[in-house]
Amino acid sequence: MATTKTVRAGVLGFSGYSGAELVRLLRRHPQSIPVLLEHRATSEDERAPWEDGLERVSFTSAGLAAAPVDVVFTATSAEVALEAVPLALEAGAKAVDISGAHRLRTAETQKRWYGFDHPRPDLLAEASYGLPEFYREQIRGARLVANPGCYPTAANLSIEPLAAAEVLDRSFGIVCDAKSGVSGAGRKPSAKTHFSQVTENFSAYGALFHRHTPEVMQNSGLSEGELFFTAQLLPLHRGILETIYLRTVNPMTTDDVVAVLEARYADEPFVRVLPGGELPDLHSVQYTNLCKIGVRADAATRRVMLVSVIDNLIKGAAGQALQNMNLLFGLDETMGLLNAADGERP
Amino acid sequence: MATTKTVRAGVLGFSGYSGAELVRLLRRHPQSIPVLLEHRATSEDERAPWEDGLERVSFTSAGLAAAPVDVVFTATSAEVALEAVPLALEAGAKAVDISGAHRLRTAETQKRWYGFDHPRPDLLAEASYGLPEFYREQIRGARLVANPGCYPTAANLSIEPLAAAEVLDRSFGIVCDAKSGVSGAGRKPSAKTHFSQVTENFSAYGALFHRHTPEVMQNSGLSEGELFFTAQLLPLHRGILETIYLRTVNPMTTDDVVAVLEARYADEPFVRVLPGGELPDLHSVQYTNLCKIGVRADAATRRVMLVSVIDNLIKGAAGQALQNMNLLFGLDETMGLLNAADGERP
Amino acid sequence: MATTKTVRAGVLGFSGYSGAELVRLLRRHPQSIPVLLEHRATSEDERAPWEDGLERVSFTSAGLAAAPVDVVFTATSAEVALEAVPLALEAGAKAVDISGAHRLRTAETQKRWYGFDHPRPDLLAEASYGLPEFYREQIRGARLVANPGCYPTAANLSIEPLAAAEVLDRSFGIVCDAKSGVSGAGRKPSAKTHFSQVTENFSAYGALFHRHTPEVMQNSGLSEGELFFTAQLLPLHRGILETIYLRTVNPMTTDDVVAVLEARYADEPFVRVLPGGELPDLHSVQYTNLCKIGVRADAATRRVMLVSVIDNLIKGAAGQALQNMNLLFGLDETMGLLNAADGERP
Amino acid sequence: MATTKTVRAGVLGFSGYSGAELVRLLRRHPQSIPVLLEHRATSEDERAPWEDGLERVSFTSAGLAAAPVDVVFTATSAEVALEAVPLALEAGAKAVDISGAHRLRTAETQKRWYGFDHPRPDLLAEASYGLPEFYREQIRGARLVANPGCYPTAANLSIEPLAAAEVLDRSFGIVCDAKSGVSGAGRKPSAKTHFSQVTENFSAYGALFHRHTPEVMQNSGLSEGELFFTAQLLPLHRGILETIYLRTVNPMTTDDVVAVLEARYADEPFVRVLPGGELPDLHSVQYTNLCKIGVRADAATRRVMLVSVIDNLIKGAAGQALQNMNLLFGLDETMGLLNAADGERP
Repeated sequence: MATTKTVRAGVLGFSGYSGAELVRLLRRHPQSIPVLLEHRATSEDERAPWEDGLERVSFTSAGLAAAPVDVVFTATSAEVALEAVPLALEAGAKAVDISGAHRLRTAETQKRWYGFDHPRPDLLAEASYGLPEFYREQIRGARLVANPGCYPTAANLSIEPLAAAEVLDRSFGIVCDAKSGVSGAGRKPSAKTHFSQVTENFSAYGALFHRHTPEVMQNSGLSEGELFFTAQLLPLHRGILETIYLRTVNPMTTDDVVAVLEARYADEPFVRVLPGGELPDLHSVQYTNLCKIGVRADAATRRVMLVSVIDNLIKGAAGQALQNMNLLFGLDETMGLLNAADGERP
Repeated sequence: MATTKTVRAGVLGFSGYSGAELVRLLRRHPQSIPVLLEHRATSEDERAPWEDGLERVSFTSAGLAAAPVDVVFTATSAEVALEAVPLALEAGAKAVDISGAHRLRTAETQKRWYGFDHPRPDLLAEASYGLPEFYREQIRGARLVANPGCYPTAANLSIEPLAAAEVLDRSFGIVCDAKSGVSGAGRKPSAKTHFSQVTENFSAYGALFHRHTPEVMQNSGLSEGELFFTAQLLPLHRGILETIYLRTVNPMTTDDVVAVLEARYADEPFVRVLPGGELPDLHSVQYTNLCKIGVRADAATRRVMLVSVIDNLIKGAAGQALQNMNLLFGLDETMGLLNAADGERP
Repeated sequence: MATTKTVRAGVLGFSGYSGAELVRLLRRHPQSIPVLLEHRATSEDERAPWEDGLERVSFTSAGLAAAPVDVVFTATSAEVALEAVPLALEAGAKAVDISGAHRLRTAETQKRWYGFDHPRPDLLAEASYGLPEFYREQIRGARLVANPGCYPTAANLSIEPLAAAEVLDRSFGIVCDAKSGVSGAGRKPSAKTHFSQVTENFSAYGALFHRHTPEVMQNSGLSEGELFFTAQLLPLHRGILETIYLRTVNPMTTDDVVAVLEARYADEPFVRVLPGGELPDLHSVQYTNLCKIGVRADAATRRVMLVSVIDNLIKGAAGQALQNMNLLFGLDETMGLLNAADGERP
Repeated sequence: MATTKTVRAGVLGFSGYSGAELVRLLRRHPQSIPVLLEHRATSEDERAPWEDGLERVSFTSAGLAAAPVDVVFTATSAEVALEAVPLALEAGAKAVDISGAHRLRTAETQKRWYGFDHPRPDLLAEASYGLPEFYREQIRGARLVANPGCYPTAANLSIEPLAAAEVLDRSFGIVCDAKSGVSGAGRKPSAKTHFSQVTENFSAYGALFHRHTPEVMQNSGLSEGELFFTAQLLPLHRGILETIYLRTVNPMTTDDVVAVLEARYADEPFVRVLPGGELPDLHSVQYTNLCKIGVRADAATRRVMLVSVIDNLIKGAAGQALQNMNLLFGLDETMGLLNAADGERP
């Protein structure tokens, strides 16, 4: 039985790319009311058009007591999220943390990759990893959801089914050559995101390892030294494309690999496995909550190449957060996301 | 008789777009040695490749006394140039000011458009306006050259010959609809120059008036209320295109207008008037010191449209500064600029 | 009383940019069923994802008899539309012609600007010009709607209210400096639309006059010689920005001009007049059916600059066509367009 | 002893991207005269500005007899080059084939990858592969030089030194994830190079294998099944970046790998190995004849990532062809290329 509850959805960090995208999606969602959670004073002239007419609540215990929300989304830095998530939970709200602060399962891993002692290992242990295609049931009953990173979303959705089917040659390892649009670097201006630096340019900024590596290992069942990940900057606004190279234990054709993935995703509304060696481009997923996966295999050499694409701000952040909200509150998982899902660019 | 002197050319502000472009041009110039003038400490890791191996001199009286330069280029803010130009002149060097600090002839005009009292009205009066096509002889004998702004260069070269020929209908005025690449906004990161803000976007940021307006009025012989200037931001790195609308006193055809311009520029190495209604694009001037001017006229309505294009960092800044240096030191005016002039993009 | 009819909406030319955008919008529209009208054979591998699952009907008398549609949209060349519109009307459907074939009121004007004798002057006379903000009532009762051109939509919405209020100084004329994204040139590959030709470039391709000029004169009440229109190509996919220069009869401030426009558009769902000299950019209208108009006036010189922006494929083509369909069939005018209208880019 | 000969350099295919770039470079070269070889009639209005004033010769036996050239560059399709190279050699000229028609050593390999029987296996056997860093002495004495492909140039320069030093773990193989700007697809308009298709997009168009694969295997000493190559399209005009993944036999640090490469290239004017894990971007090689190579190694897992960048039209085509011409005629190898080599973008 579907609930008809209207979810009061608080967004902390609503002026960043992910937060703003989330506010836009929440405005269209038929059973949610977006609430802007103010962490610091925001001057009138910084206000963006999509904030027009929305309720603003001070993100403090007093503010949340006076104007309670059902869920708090933290589209902020990890530092802010580490303070904000406990406050949200204490105020009786659920929390969907879009920062990276609760994605790794143990404080040890967290410290190694993020470089600090996590103040609340209990919440690390409690958090459900918000990739609905893998952890749907856990998410439904959760209090705290750690929304996946953009790079790991595209990687896990492609790699894990092959790892689970035990077709990966672990001695070869997996190479993930990832490319992201500039919105992945956030809205804050810097020399690296200056238009003149980015246009007509391309470069690698992470090499072999990246702090998203453990998030993929953890959720795809890979061990130390089995994943190599490079992050590169594309001269475009939004979208991630990951070219993933692996070797299979036994010879597999393109159709064989497609079959493994298809078996996993046949009923998933937001994952599309492309048949016949077709490879997806970024246009085909921008402004949607889709992940599309293309496959090319060479049975003779047991080599496989996967191409996995998402919109980093939607399936890689705000759209997936909304998908998680739908699960947390017993709503149809695709609510408010289907328009985002048919956005094929003409 | 050509001099064989080698010019020691100091560049203050060598890490900005104009300064860096100037250093690159000076490296290729057969009779100059670029010297990096250090105003503040620059950390090792900010050093750019085109600075490799160049002499660095502290921009102080002591520094210039120990390692004199023949000319100081100020590719800085107006504030820095107001201090630097007197110091350079006192040290016995000539000065080419690429900032806007010495372009207007009187302290009154300066104050009205730039909003401050000019500390050295004597230097305002002394400065030669560095548009060689108009003021070549003055520049040759000058001590201080005010290098023109990028927008005014494209505008003056197009408008002044028509004003001088007295063909302009002054009651109509002149509309200059100007578009510039992002490098015109400088290297400093800001929300306005963030890649994601600029890509797939276009906007006006100055309207009807702009602080470059008086620089055009002064050098094209226009009066108050005769020039309307709008500045707009193109999603590209370099280049300015100005679409200029005017009305003539008597009916003129495209060929008539071309003839007026051509009479003026027949012997100029860096100005090309296109025949037959041909209109120039930005590709045809990027990475060159050229200004190209296209013309379309409708005799029946006495309307004329001009399209004027330059590379804002070369003819609009560093290239013109080098052209001025050549004049100041008795060198061939095109020295070090011809390669820049044949850069047609394939 | 709102109808609950479902409109069978046939799209001829569904693989071009405007046609494909229209199919996408129709898919989301709650009371329409898009039907792909096949004019020539389309091979399987040219099919685009947004065509999946849609009915295909041969665009012939027999085809339309077997599978009637309520309306035919012609997103084709003028040549194809001249044949298709009569065929559609004979089959009992209404027609919304997105080509330019029925926009001018008389065969004389048509011949002068498009260069051929119109085969059906009766249909030219019958057609309603599909700018709902001006001709809403006519459109409701029409059989044939001539959907406006993209450039004229942005121009008419800005100019006509000022012409109607008799504030324009006609002796000065109006200069419309228009800039369009590449999608305005259509999907067909050419040297002019090659990525390498367009990126980092900007150029004018129409000057002083353009075949869209009479469409603006006719609907804004301007006479011969009062409008000057230049078309320029921006290095981006979609969007039109027009910078419009005019002179008023009497001195007017920015607020005065805003008041004239605001009086006209206060109740319009898709036109926004920006207050206080604010100027709109393309990001703020892309993927929406909005037209936004910014104003800057200088009372001293009686000069006014308007900036008018639209998405050329939505308000400039497919969105406006859908708006017209809603009127033709008694549906809420904004149906299926509100999501497109809240698409502010984060 | 340096020759003072002036080389008459004929360019066949001078209107394509590589041919036009070559004409531009030849114009600046102090000891060459570019000659445009006309294969088909070219209409006056297709002429590009960089062709102004150049001699045009009909590319026929009679034409070459009447106006002999010292070398013929074929910047054409393989089909045209297969006819043109013999004709050039018969006319007594040397030939530098920029098409792919003479790059593979045997007719068997040629047929397998290019799909046709090579008409002149003798010329395949005779041709010197024009990668000066590997085959300098052979090229000096050659009659026919097969100018390398753009992708193979970046790959061979990075991979071969490691293969030669026997540090590669052959069982792992090499993954080359390559990205190219649009100019690599040529000037001919197509759906794939339409601006609207490319902007804000990224996609893979070759996967695991590509017809450039054998050209790398042959010159880097790799065997069947050891190289996996993916080609992807960047939304920019020029530049290739290849991210290359390999495993070493024994643990090596970044410095160890740099040392192997540096030993090979210490005296090369156009190859730069970056120290300390620094990774090159495309801006740093555009408009130059440089190849820059960055290195990251993880000794623990024996993984190495290389990033190799070139300008596809210069070191990947026209610049390397000119380098080969310099060798063929006993000129300084860097003549006419040093300006191209200092083109660091400010």
